[in-house]
Amino acid sequence: MATRSHMLLALSLFVTHVSNQSGASRWEERNPGVWTTEFGRHDTPTLTEASGSTPLKGQIEKLPRAELPFKINEVKLTKTRDYCVVSVPLKPGEKIFGLGMQMSGINRRGGVYHLQVDHFAEGHDRLHAPTPMYISSLGYAVFLNTSRPINFYVGVGNRRTDPKIPAFKDRNTDRNWDAQPDSGQVEASVQAPGLEITILAGPTAMQALQRYNLFCGGGAMPPLWAVGFWHRTPSLATSSQVSQEVDEFAKRGFPLDVIGLEPGWQSRSYPGSMEWSPERFPNPKQFVSSMAEKGIHVNLWENPYVAPGSSLFKKLESRFGSHTVWLGAVPDVFDDKASKSIRDFHTDKHLNIGVSGYKIDEVDGFDFWLWPDHATFPSGLDGLQMRQIYGVLWQKLIDNMYRQKGQRTFGLVRGSNGAASRLPFAIYSDTYDHHQYITALINSSLAGVTWCAEIRSADSNEEWVRRMQSACLSPIAQLNAWDSGKKPWSYPAVSEEIREAMLLRESLVPYLYTAFAQYRLSGIPPVRPMCLIDGGVESDQYMLGDNLLFAPMFVGAKTRTVRLPAGKWYDYSSGKFAGSSQTITIAPSLSEIPLYVRGGAAIPTIPGALRADSIKPCLLRCYGEGPYVAPIYEDDGISFGFEQGHYFLGTARINKGKITTKLEDGLRPNVMTKFEYVVIAP
Amino acid sequence: MATRSHMLLALSLFVTHVSNQSGASRWEERNPGVWTTEFGRHDTPTLTEASGSTPLKGQIEKLPRAELPFKINEVKLTKTRDYCVVSVPLKPGEKIFGLGMQMSGINRRGGVYHLQVDHFAEGHDRLHAPTPMYISSLGYAVFLNTSRPINFYVGVGNRRTDPKIPAFKDRNTDRNWDAQPDSGQVEASVQAPGLEITILAGPTAMQALQRYNLFCGGGAMPPLWAVGFWHRTPSLATSSQVSQEVDEFAKRGFPLDVIGLEPGWQSRSYPGSMEWSPERFPNPKQFVSSMAEKGIHVNLWENPYVAPGSSLFKKLESRFGSHTVWLGAVPDVFDDKASKSIRDFHTDKHLNIGVSGYKIDEVDGFDFWLWPDHATFPSGLDGLQMRQIYGVLWQKLIDNMYRQKGQRTFGLVRGSNGAASRLPFAIYSDTYDHHQYITALINSSLAGVTWCAEIRSADSNEEWVRRMQSACLSPIAQLNAWDSGKKPWSYPAVSEEIREAMLLRESLVPYLYTAFAQYRLSGIPPVRPMCLIDGGVESDQYMLGDNLLFAPMFVGAKTRTVRLPAGKWYDYSSGKFAGSSQTITIAPSLSEIPLYVRGGAAIPTIPGALRADSIKPCLLRCYGEGPYVAPIYEDDGISFGFEQGHYFLGTARINKGKITTKLEDGLRPNVMTKFEYVVIAP
Repeated sequence: MATRSHMLLALSLFVTHVSNQSGASRWEERNPGVWTTEFGRHDTPTLTEASGSTPLKGQIEKLPRAELPFKINEVKLTKTRDYCVVSVPLKPGEKIFGLGMQMSGINRRGGVYHLQVDHFAEGHDRLHAPTPMYISSLGYAVFLNTSRPINFYVGVGNRRTDPKIPAFKDRNTDRNWDAQPDSGQVEASVQAPGLEITILAGPTAMQALQRYNLFCGGGAMPPLWAVGFWHRTPSLATSSQVSQEVDEFAKRGFPLDVIGLEPGWQSRSYPGSMEWSPERFPNPKQFVSSMAEKGIHVNLWENPYVAPGSSLFKKLESRFGSHTVWLGAVPDVFDDKASKSIRDFHTDKHLNIGVSGYKIDEVDGFDFWLWPDHATFPSGLDGLQMRQIYGVLWQKLIDNMYRQKGQRTFGLVRGSNGAASRLPFAIYSDTYDHHQYITALINSSLAGVTWCAEIRSADSNEEWVRRMQSACLSPIAQLNAWDSGKKPWSYPAVSEEIREAMLLRESLVPYLYTAFAQYRLSGIPPVRPMCLIDGGVESDQYMLGDNLLFAPMFVGAKTRTVRLPAGKWYDYSSGKFAGSSQTITIAPSLSEIPLYVRGGAAIPTIPGALRADSIKPCLLRCYGEGPYVAPIYEDDGISFGFEQGHYFLGTARINKGKITTKLEDGLRPNVMTKFEYVVIAP
Repeated sequence: MATRSHMLLALSLFVTHVSNQSGASRWEERNPGVWTTEFGRHDTPTLTEASGSTPLKGQIEKLPRAELPFKINEVKLTKTRDYCVVSVPLKPGEKIFGLGMQMSGINRRGGVYHLQVDHFAEGHDRLHAPTPMYISSLGYAVFLNTSRPINFYVGVGNRRTDPKIPAFKDRNTDRNWDAQPDSGQVEASVQAPGLEITILAGPTAMQALQRYNLFCGGGAMPPLWAVGFWHRTPSLATSSQVSQEVDEFAKRGFPLDVIGLEPGWQSRSYPGSMEWSPERFPNPKQFVSSMAEKGIHVNLWENPYVAPGSSLFKKLESRFGSHTVWLGAVPDVFDDKASKSIRDFHTDKHLNIGVSGYKIDEVDGFDFWLWPDHATFPSGLDGLQMRQIYGVLWQKLIDNMYRQKGQRTFGLVRGSNGAASRLPFAIYSDTYDHHQYITALINSSLAGVTWCAEIRSADSNEEWVRRMQSACLSPIAQLNAWDSGKKPWSYPAVSEEIREAMLLRESLVPYLYTAFAQYRLSGIPPVRPMCLIDGGVESDQYMLGDNLLFAPMFVGAKTRTVRLPAGKWYDYSSGKFAGSSQTITIAPSLSEIPLYVRGGAAIPTIPGALRADSIKPCLLRCYGEGPYVAPIYEDDGISFGFEQGHYFLGTARINKGKITTKLEDGLRPNVMTKFEYVVIAP
């Protein structure tokens, strides 16, 4: 009997194995230029399941038809004792971008990556967002859709039987000996019963990224206010202290749109109650209303670890993981009922009195704070897998919460992963190196996520200014002063430079809002790495939207070089011609921001704005020789109407003094904004 | 039919699961004070299987009878979807040592460790020797006998249902809030079908370590020559250049015992032939003989990755892993036939002409050099598991090779793991931080391995001297100049200080050889961390053998503190009284070595020795007040006769001018060495 059952078992495993192998080659083009296959038994959840993403098929269809630079059957799928292995060919000179929101480097070829969610510390493995996706400079992307940790060997590890193995060289005598002979393959592996693999065509590298973002539901579309300026108050600030601080921004003429409350808004924290502190916020409804009257949106810090004293705790009915975090219970947010309890609780306590969004802290790491890899959860996921997607699940939960109210949100989160493009959150970190922040900004776009290059404090006036300039020219502009207590005017000698940077930011809201809409509708992220638009160049410059090029200055550097791509480029502030297809060296003073505009472009702005509550009246700043063209997006700024097409996407064109607008996409027949224009010239 | 087979399968899995669970509590005391259990299906190979270790039962029986500070059934074994989990209780104040040859810190409580073999870079996870064993300050050790990577959460991760969970505190208001509440448990987990767990009693922490080392076959017993001084020549040195360099040592009066040849001795390297270079070593037999005539032993660098042109390649008959390293084939040394081919080849080409040992490089990492985790090997191990034990398997292979010749060896290796105590290798690294080297020296003993705190080069005279002093007061003293080309006299201004340190080392060979014998026979390592002998103190000082205390000096420090334990302590060089149970501050000049001797001890030395070819004539240096006692070990220095008891272990005692020796262990009735003594006093 035992013998017979073993025989049946053996037979059944063999059949499964064979069907896996043959199944592996069944690639389906479910969306144009997007091929998917299931390899082995499908692991639950995939990243697309965790994030609740479905492809924006209609938008994908607008991308040009494209093929891959290799035959899809050259992608090899093999199973070993413990691993599913995927091998994708690499061509000589091909560069590989992505593999998570990396904090250093851009081209991943020649490296090994063991991608896991963690608070970033060092290296390339443990990341806030270890998206298992890469983009090739040859114009395609590969996405391994699994919620398990994954290993990538990018051109590393030659197979012994590979007929194309490089020629041997003797290190003793051959000067051309190579310490790391390229394998001509990306090999990726995951310890799981199976995974889904998706390969996306370009034809360009940027279009491959666009296809990936659209495959994941399109980029996140923030409410208009989220494109303005964010500030966070000290942890134990009371409602009246917060009000005073907000008023101080207005009094001094500094823009502000979002005020973030840190742990002290709760009656207890670490573990948290998620309920208002009766001491520090005795009348939360009135507080949030008074903020709204001033045009200020309230964002609440939370981490998801629930104190037993909280009324949420009882509602979750022990749908918790085996281990605690800061002694708080860890809700199993892969469980629908737990998610519903959290949604109802938050809607009742926060959303219904006007809270606009959340900052979800500490869903990433560190190991010594989070649950162990072997923790168990009621839904059946283990700790390792849950950690890979915990930030994603929370983002989805909060997005759904606001969707039920028909109201867009935008928030902050410390952990994310693949298929999260559509989720309205920017990632932040407890690290604080300016170079790493800029690299993260570039690599976040290459990973299909958004990064908040926030400012917290500075050791010098110079640092304060340079970091504020970077923060203001990144997708989400935030002063996070929960710990430092800093205000924008905390360094009096450079207060004016700071105000200028913040006013620049606020004035660019119409332009940046359009850039986000492009992210949503065509998958092009607001921050555009030069490697995707300037022949694979690895650089710390980046394009912000279609027409602005920013070259950040770092503390201590008096000069820097800027590589200006094809076209003519002009200084944003003065309109002075800067160059064309060339590398220039600049020496900007502290008040000068190295920001360049493409010739012929018009940049939609609202000069002097202190709130991001409207995109009108809109001034088009024109550079170089006309006619000038500005991309323009407009919608109601707050609802999900844009998902039903209630938006205007098109251009404003200034030719010989006349402004015309043209609808390219969306239902609204004409733009309602009144435009004016000015040609910026020295 | 299918349904029925699934039912049978389900039933069978259930039964297995239950028997795992109940089996887990069957602890067997197979050796006194050593309890072992099998948890789940036994994973092949365990670390003891990989290293070929069997307990020295007779020696374990000499340790005092001991119990654990908890009931063995308080150790919880649970299985989750993917993990075997082991939980061991921790008491308040209990310190945890070990968990691999760590490069920073000593007490592991409060940390998380994902132990994997790698070249050390940063952090606590990827180590040259990630021994999955820890020692408690309460006097027991825990060894998880598995060749898979393993996670340890040391007092980290409170379980929600733990009745002893600490009290909640509100971070907002409670100053006593704890960022990391202790869990009162070590939880360890491994992704494997099962593992073997061994718990070893003390009663002291040192005795728990002793029990572990004896359980693993006792510490490695080097041949006498290996305790002397080692030097490595530049990679492309020819046989005549090496001979000249060796002669230069003698001419200048610097001791030398081992000369190490680097990749250039091979006809090709990276990948290597493992065959002599006809250009650089035209007559290897004559070269090795000429070295032997000078009393010099030859050590050969190798890494295990075989060039197809080598005659070894054909002999291995494709018993290689799927992936190459530097395009060389990776022998599956878990395969007996492959191991035999390698053994026969090396015996023929090297051992039979007198080569004394090997330096096995690059069996540890880095990721971008080694095979991927998902590589496959003919024996069925995957890349991840093979990498955990590859260094151990090579050590065993080479040890067996020399055992067949009845000749002891000692070598160097870059990767090791648990159960490797008995293997005659010291670990080295490509990192080169002096502080890390000293910490590694201390933690190597806490991990049951030996560390080579070698010297390679220096940026200043001071560094050259201080590092040489440390190198000379560590288990294996080596100048590794393959890259720098440095000789001991390369810094002329401090040449005399260097010679003094090297002469000190050579003179201490009888003392250090005894310390190694103690490692072998009682499991006490030569380097003894203060935390095991001075009440858990975490310190960068260490005891070398029974009676010497060394406090290393680091570059830039003009003074340091030294904590002198109970007893009276004397300066080694001058005999001056230094203190007793107190912390002193010293300011040693560059030529002064902070080395202290326990009062009443006699240190066996050979003054002025230039070769470690004998332990006679032996001068006992006596300190403080008599009677003086010296531990003494003697054997033939080269064979395995000591394993059959052919040794003398005992004491020499000097009382009122008379020297008596006393046999305590071993077959030899009396010591053959002629002793003299001198009382060292200011």
